[in-house]
Amino acid sequence: MLRNLPFTIDSLHLAYRSQTKVADVISECFRRINQADDAGIFISQSSLQYTERAISELGEFDPISKPLWGIPFAVKDNIDVLGLTTTAGCPDFSYEPPSDSFVVNLLREAGAICVGKTNLDQFATGLVGVRTPYPIPKNAIDPTIVPGGSSSGSAVSVAHGIVTFSLGTDTAGSGRVPAALNSIVGLKPTLGSLSNTGVVPACRTLDTISIFAATVADAYTVFQLAAVYDEQDSYSRNFSNPKLNASTLSKKIGIPSGDSIRFFGDKIQQASFDHTLEELAKHGAELIELDFEPFYSAASLLYEGVWVAERYAAVGDFLEKSPGSFNPITKQIISQAKKYSAADAFKDIYKLQSLKRTIRSKLADLDFICVPSIPTFYSVADLIADPITPNSNLGTYTNFANFLDMSAITVPVDPRKDGLPGSVTLLATAGKDNVIAEIAYKLQENGHAALGATDWPLDTKQLTNDVDPNTELALSVCGAHMSGLPLNGELTKLGARYLYTTTTSESYQLFRLAGSNPFRPGLVRTPSTGVAIELEVWAIPLEHVGTFISGIPMPLGIGKVVLKDGSQVSGFICEKISEDGAENISHFGSWRNYIDEV
Amino acid sequence: MLRNLPFTIDSLHLAYRSQTKVADVISECFRRINQADDAGIFISQSSLQYTERAISELGEFDPISKPLWGIPFAVKDNIDVLGLTTTAGCPDFSYEPPSDSFVVNLLREAGAICVGKTNLDQFATGLVGVRTPYPIPKNAIDPTIVPGGSSSGSAVSVAHGIVTFSLGTDTAGSGRVPAALNSIVGLKPTLGSLSNTGVVPACRTLDTISIFAATVADAYTVFQLAAVYDEQDSYSRNFSNPKLNASTLSKKIGIPSGDSIRFFGDKIQQASFDHTLEELAKHGAELIELDFEPFYSAASLLYEGVWVAERYAAVGDFLEKSPGSFNPITKQIISQAKKYSAADAFKDIYKLQSLKRTIRSKLADLDFICVPSIPTFYSVADLIADPITPNSNLGTYTNFANFLDMSAITVPVDPRKDGLPGSVTLLATAGKDNVIAEIAYKLQENGHAALGATDWPLDTKQLTNDVDPNTELALSVCGAHMSGLPLNGELTKLGARYLYTTTTSESYQLFRLAGSNPFRPGLVRTPSTGVAIELEVWAIPLEHVGTFISGIPMPLGIGKVVLKDGSQVSGFICEKISEDGAENISHFGSWRNYIDEV
Repeated sequence: MLRNLPFTIDSLHLAYRSQTKVADVISECFRRINQADDAGIFISQSSLQYTERAISELGEFDPISKPLWGIPFAVKDNIDVLGLTTTAGCPDFSYEPPSDSFVVNLLREAGAICVGKTNLDQFATGLVGVRTPYPIPKNAIDPTIVPGGSSSGSAVSVAHGIVTFSLGTDTAGSGRVPAALNSIVGLKPTLGSLSNTGVVPACRTLDTISIFAATVADAYTVFQLAAVYDEQDSYSRNFSNPKLNASTLSKKIGIPSGDSIRFFGDKIQQASFDHTLEELAKHGAELIELDFEPFYSAASLLYEGVWVAERYAAVGDFLEKSPGSFNPITKQIISQAKKYSAADAFKDIYKLQSLKRTIRSKLADLDFICVPSIPTFYSVADLIADPITPNSNLGTYTNFANFLDMSAITVPVDPRKDGLPGSVTLLATAGKDNVIAEIAYKLQENGHAALGATDWPLDTKQLTNDVDPNTELALSVCGAHMSGLPLNGELTKLGARYLYTTTTSESYQLFRLAGSNPFRPGLVRTPSTGVAIELEVWAIPLEHVGTFISGIPMPLGIGKVVLKDGSQVSGFICEKISEDGAENISHFGSWRNYIDEV
Repeated sequence: MLRNLPFTIDSLHLAYRSQTKVADVISECFRRINQADDAGIFISQSSLQYTERAISELGEFDPISKPLWGIPFAVKDNIDVLGLTTTAGCPDFSYEPPSDSFVVNLLREAGAICVGKTNLDQFATGLVGVRTPYPIPKNAIDPTIVPGGSSSGSAVSVAHGIVTFSLGTDTAGSGRVPAALNSIVGLKPTLGSLSNTGVVPACRTLDTISIFAATVADAYTVFQLAAVYDEQDSYSRNFSNPKLNASTLSKKIGIPSGDSIRFFGDKIQQASFDHTLEELAKHGAELIELDFEPFYSAASLLYEGVWVAERYAAVGDFLEKSPGSFNPITKQIISQAKKYSAADAFKDIYKLQSLKRTIRSKLADLDFICVPSIPTFYSVADLIADPITPNSNLGTYTNFANFLDMSAITVPVDPRKDGLPGSVTLLATAGKDNVIAEIAYKLQENGHAALGATDWPLDTKQLTNDVDPNTELALSVCGAHMSGLPLNGELTKLGARYLYTTTTSESYQLFRLAGSNPFRPGLVRTPSTGVAIELEVWAIPLEHVGTFISGIPMPLGIGKVVLKDGSQVSGFICEKISEDGAENISHFGSWRNYIDEV
């Protein structure tokens, strides 16, 4: 039954393999929209003509060339989709886009089908979701609390299971706060990874498209497909975004110090965050407390500093021409820009640079940082009473990320004691989107949250390790470089990753070389008389292989080694000379066995 | 006789080795200052007490731990030197600095002795050298033409041979234009390489200290010593600045296209530039014409756009309090900032980003670009008639460099037909200061210009190649990877550099391996029966060694090879197996000899 099918990529593709029709999935999307009974989620929906045409362009089921074949998605209404009006949450501003935005075009080409444009805080200005002339979307978990913004409709549509994923945008936290409030994943890419061509700008130097999905795996898959360099976007950047690998939680993780962490009195939120930290520590994480004041200082520059002038640069002409078209709060915020001079702008840019420097040195020794996604929850009524303060508080742990050029991912963890969503956000330096996604994957897997507001459980699958030949060299080691042995640190300090343990083909002999300290083995290929010798295969970042090689002493070298399946991998070999005075220890089958013995 | 001694580092250190006293060299500096008979060069001079103390702190002659031992230098008067007033060319603004600026401190610790603070265009605003309340420094080559600015006094002091080097600053071209006008070298480092701590800001996002010297070698030596990361300067950056190596001129060089090059009617300047291009082409350079309009557009943003607001951010408070303290032209320029809003600032920042993107794609395939340092010459009378236009024209080929985050070096070439200095400027992307300095070294060596305004010839010495172990791996090759042989391209396409040819110790045999295509040699260490085998040693960038290794087929590997001097170097070795079916060709002594034969 489609009605009970979680719309993850895997479950939909499994259904398509069993003859489910795309048209039926799209119909089910629209049925779920009706079932959600919330006129605030979508500003416009795709016509039957639009979806029929999209379906007809898909061709046969082919998830290899179209990894998003038949996957429904929604798009925040400040991102262009050809055939649907772009409003940016301001009807008088609206226009018919001449083409798909760059990212929507990529996703459409990958087989995804847009079912509609979602509601937002007008001009993506806000973190609450209530600053809209359209009906306010209801939080999918608890309709009394705010849906979060600015990407309110995009988050709610995923939380209800209407679409597999949706696009938001994130300047101050619009791709993370609503994810936290609706118990879904919000992937906020490194700035420039996703093109902004065809997106209504908020703050051009700080804007990125973001991705909402029920699972980390789906969010990251969409991210990989969308992250293509765009010549037309002068802020576009090129990062390699390798596939997700299995990761452990034994990392060095920065967290806000007890003195500087802020929950605005919400003890349940504090307990929820502490629970996640305990989980991390239990799995070997080293938690390092950071004074968070510099992060808050950076954050406060966003709404209290000159960057609001970027919003004015984007829509100031329209604001002057048509002030009545604006939400009063939005207008009030954007109009603040007029008090700042160009000299003020540069002064704040200097301040930011100084904070960046301070914070960068704090991050240098950490793998990433982990924060509560939001410090507390606010009701719609709270926002009516005070439209500014709760909005500002919700950005406590998000506002600084784009300023500091960080990648971020918001992930559901166990629900709070009161049933509201638990959520943490992981942040790392630019280009480390995969690193934090691997941890988020693990956190979601370890947790017990259902998918969004549904009661569907997470369907986990094991991530596997393999080498990325564009960035890594797979290298077999047979001696003291193996895990736990004295030289293993030479690998790990170069950022090498353990891949797997195997053996050579039955055509090698292992020698203990004469006179070396520490003892060292020599692996010698002898097809006629050889045996299988234990190997570990590690992936070394290509850029560090040179450093590794330069430290290898005679008579060892790096050549090719034949594995038991007949394939070859780079690895330690020996010159012929190595046998002189050496002891044949092949019968141990492994260096580890040998040193255990002697 | 000290009177005729060129004050290059080498000639001074040679003199110190022959018992010349530092005090006498410093006295000679002051004699040369008097001889120059130009009250405009220095704003203040070091006291006898200051220099005596500096000399006493030097200790014994020790050019290893103090590479600038006893070297006199001058400092532009917007850079703090403890004990001398900083004026920035504005007496009412002046202050007594509490300490040396970060860079001056480094140079002092390296043994250099500051003899005075030099004149400048007020607040480093200008490229002409006439915008000063002090006497205008005279151009060292021809007193009718402007000295160039804003680092006027620093350039003139080096051109007269008064000091070995001097510090300037460079925002729009202040470290290059006066070098060109006075026939000396102006090294404009990559932004952030040299700390700005203790420098009066002009445009903080675009400022750098620059270095003037008579020779490329001296300028680069000072640069290397001064380029230290500074935690206190939030714009400080860390680059490796390896020593200069011998380079060829056979590079891919971008030049302004015939349609877009600008000389403002100066045919002699055009002929001079063409002469340099012919020299480059004669030495194997590939000259690629670039449409220079985007560079000019970037340049025009500097004085015509919002960046003037950075100058206002720096000295605006003082300007409002004390407008009468300013040079009228300087005041007029800086006051323009007041017409720009913060939104204007961001709009221009977007424009710049777009130009950066356009230009970056032009530069991607080039080693560097080469431009005339200045399009033409202007007299002091020209500037009195029109204080703005000639200034603006002088920045034609400099204004864009810091905007585009480029390294630059201005170097004298053959004098023009009319005797005025010939000069070109080389520009490359950030961090390639060494690359363009190597080319500038070669250009200066090939040219016939005397040192500055003196008649002292350039004393050249051969640069040598050796490996930088921090960035490169020295790798011996004994087969098809040697120069001119089929696999050499695998090295060169990874950016490897040829270092030298040598042989192994007399303990190797060379085999032609069975069955490989192309034929491949195997180098096998056999201490008792071996001979010396020819090797070439190449330097591969460390980050590319992994890629190289991954392509090496069994039974070859990379291990350590013993050279004829007994030292070891990473290089091709063989597994024992390699001898099976292989032909011993050791008697050829080299793979090259063998393939010539067969």
